[in-house]
Amino acid sequence: MTRQSSRVPEHPSVQEIALQAVLEALVDPVRRSIVTQLHDAPADISCGNFDLPVARSTATHHFNVLREAGIIRQHYVGTSRMNTLRRDDLDGRFPGLLDACIADAHVATAGAPA
Amino acid sequence: MTRQSSRVPEHPSVQEIALQAVLEALVDPVRRSIVTQLHDAPADISCGNFDLPVARSTATHHFNVLREAGIIRQHYVGTSRMNTLRRDDLDGRFPGLLDACIADAHVATAGAPA
Repeated sequence: MTRQSSRVPEHPSVQEIALQAVLEALVDPVRRSIVTQLHDAPADISCGNFDLPVARSTATHHFNVLREAGIIRQHYVGTSRMNTLRRDDLDGRFPGLLDACIADAHVATAGAPA
Repeated sequence: MTRQSSRVPEHPSVQEIALQAVLEALVDPVRRSIVTQLHDAPADISCGNFDLPVARSTATHHFNVLREAGIIRQHYVGTSRMNTLRRDDLDGRFPGLLDACIADAHVATAGAPA
């Protein structure tokens, strides 16, 4: 049991989510891409299954920043680290903030050449 | 006329306002303080009349970043550079984003020791 729980990374509680950390996380376009992919997916996504323009080690850093800011929740399924968007927590703390990022990403995608 | 208009700083149009630049502007707490003071004020505020914890030259830099991101509008009245929050423009482009910053600043102020 102890070994299992030691593998669960730390997350801030809803009350601990701070706007400064959230903005620092969302100012990076790769991290906003992670947020948008999680929003658009029908289920949790493992760290290895995102479409990202960075090396795996860099991606791991981005996931850590998002988790520590309170934007995503991570848990293990077997050896896969799965990611969930903390949508309700963020919307409760800062209504409209995630929506702005996701809507902007969708507009950018729609406007990009095919 | 030409001399007068040359003193008006450049501003992005509503369509040119980009989320990346807006987030880069709002990630700085001093710039969020400028936004909050403009929101709370009954009228435009000149650059010299904000309550900011930075030197005047640094404040000028922050005003420029906010103007270039499309968050504030600046115009001259005599020799004073006046600042206006582009509230409607921002709310139209990214609904909820400014509100999140302003609400957070008010909570922080309410929670601070008197």
